[in-house]
Formats: sequence, structure tokens, C-alpha cells
Amino acid sequence: MNLKDTIRTIPDFPKKGIMFRDITTLMTNPKGFTEAVKQLAAPYKNTQIDNVVGIEARGFIFGAALAVELGAGFVPVRKKGKLPFDTYEQDYDLEYGTDTLELHADAVRGQERILLIDDLIATGGTAEAAVKLLRKAGGNVIAAAFVIDLPDLGGRQRIEAMGVPVTTLVEFDGH
Amino acid sequence: MNLKDTIRTIPDFPKKGIMFRDITTLMTNPKGFTEAVKQLAAPYKNTQIDNVVGIEARGFIFGAALAVELGAGFVPVRKKGKLPFDTYEQDYDLEYGTDTLELHADAVRGQERILLIDDLIATGGTAEAAVKLLRKAGGNVIAAAFVIDLPDLGGRQRIEAMGVPVTTLVEFDGH
Repeated sequence: MNLKDTIRTIPDFPKKGIMFRDITTLMTNPKGFTEAVKQLAAPYKNTQIDNVVGIEARGFIFGAALAVELGAGFVPVRKKGKLPFDTYEQDYDLEYGTDTLELHADAVRGQERILLIDDLIATGGTAEAAVKLLRKAGGNVIAAAFVIDLPDLGGRQRIEAMGVPVTTLVEFDGH
Repeated sequence: MNLKDTIRTIPDFPKKGIMFRDITTLMTNPKGFTEAVKQLAAPYKNTQIDNVVGIEARGFIFGAALAVELGAGFVPVRKKGKLPFDTYEQDYDLEYGTDTLELHADAVRGQERILLIDDLIATGGTAEAAVKLLRKAGGNVIAAAFVIDLPDLGGRQRIEAMGVPVTTLVEFDGH
């Protein structure tokens, strides 16, 4: 099955000129979802992964599924103000302004081998913030995985330059 | 393993008088997360489930994990304005004001057997809105599952009164 064919493209969302890659059509498809999770897990099947870290909100979906597939725990990285316990924070730049990611201060103890996951990597700004956040907490990020890569935006290089290998499943040209 | 022991209670979050049940300590624990997903899936192992529907955001985590465990697809029910395609909407009451859930108009085709999931059921207001939303789209909700039940708040009865059987894993007294 070709995963790319199960992803719907919606022109001009959330604004004019953006070709939005709608991954809900992949996940709603039982064969597509199972296959995507299997392919995401494949490079890590023979590596110890203690925790999968997913970035809110679509990263929760693939991250939690991957955690089950790998027998790992799941750690959420959330938007500011959503986590109830003490947190570490990391700001990151958006096109206009900044946003903040949070991680529970005790979610990482230092010895765990962490796999970071999100649905899509574009410029890599969010993933970079998540790696910084995990390192602030003492975390050992051994790799990052994404379903969709937009290679023209250079996110993979940005994360690999931090010493974190990246695996992805499908690529789309452009923004 | 006693799942209840892995759930942390945070007093006075998000406001004075609320005992917040913090499920992140369960999901971060690899054994706890795997066990919770297995227990959530158990009642449905011999039933055809085509799609698991998870409610944003913690319902995404348990819903996606459960979808993998059952070999089903995953359908997200999101807060208003997050889904890129045509949607159905359903309002529901909060303590102050209202909020709106959305579902992609083509996420349900009518013949699928749907299992609804969220991390916690309290008064059942959000779950009721999700059932209404799925029925608006022609969906066949065959059951709803929650990790945590707060039985004093009556949510289970509210959902079962809609003709949707409910399964839960652990109970806490009070609010």
C-alpha cells in the first residue's frame, strides 16, 4: 500500500498558498494507519526505546501508537498551560510571534532512550524546540521520526545538525 | 500491576477544590501504558471495531494506542477550527459558557463500527457531545471506553442512557 496516496492535500489551508497535507485520511484508514505505525517502528525494532515523546496534538496520535508497537511508555510535550505538574519550558519562533512547549519536570529521568515523534517535519522549528526541552530535562534523544517530510524546508538537516538522526515515511515537494 | 497506583493526584488543579487525576504518570510508565491499552482493548477483542474515535487531546493518546491494538483506524474529534476539511459540529456546555467539537464530514461513512474513547469520564458532557456528533455523521457508536471513571459525577449513566455501553478501568471518588 502506498501511504502517500492515502494523504489528502487541501489547498489554501490554513491560509492562501499553503498546500495542507491532511493526514487524517491516512489514520482513518485501518490498513493505512496500521501500515504507517509499522513503518515508523521498523528502524527501531532492534533498538531499546524506553519512551516515545509525541508533540501535541497530531504527534500524540502517531506517538502513542508507536509506543504500543515498541512496548515503550509515552511522554506528551504540550502547549503551555496544559500540564498539571512542574514543567520545563521551551520557546520557539512562529511565523509571527513565539509559542511555548512544556514537558513535565519528572517525565524524563535521564537514563531513558527517547524517540521523538510528530506527524510532519517542515522547517523543524517545533521539533528543535522539543529536542532542546528534552535535553533541558536531561533526556537522551536517540532519534526523531515523522510521517511526512517537506524536504524543501530543511527541517531534517536542522534536527540532524543537533546530533539527532531522523527517519521519515513520505515526502511532499513545496511548502 | 495496579493501574490506579500509577495515576498521580494533583490537588487544586486547574482550580481550588479540584483533585486532578494526572494520567501522564501512567502513560510514561512503559508497563503501565501497555497494560492500560491491553485492558482497554480486552472487552472488544472479539468484536469487529473499524474505527476508534478519540477526543482531543488526551483521548488521542489512548485512542490511537487502542486503534493499533485492535487493528482499527483512528478518527480524531477535535476542538473547533483544527480540522482542515468540511466538518460536522456539536456544541456542549462547560461550567461557564460552551465549547464546540468537530468531526470531518467524511470520516464516518455509516457502516463502520465505532468505539469512542477518552482518558476520563466525569459528568459525561464531552462524551455525550461526541456521540451526538458521530450520530449526526451517520456513525454507529457501539461502545465507549475510558481509563478513569469518576462515578459520583454520573457520566457513565448519561452515556448508557444514549444506548452506548461504557467500559472503564479505574474509579476515583469525588470530583
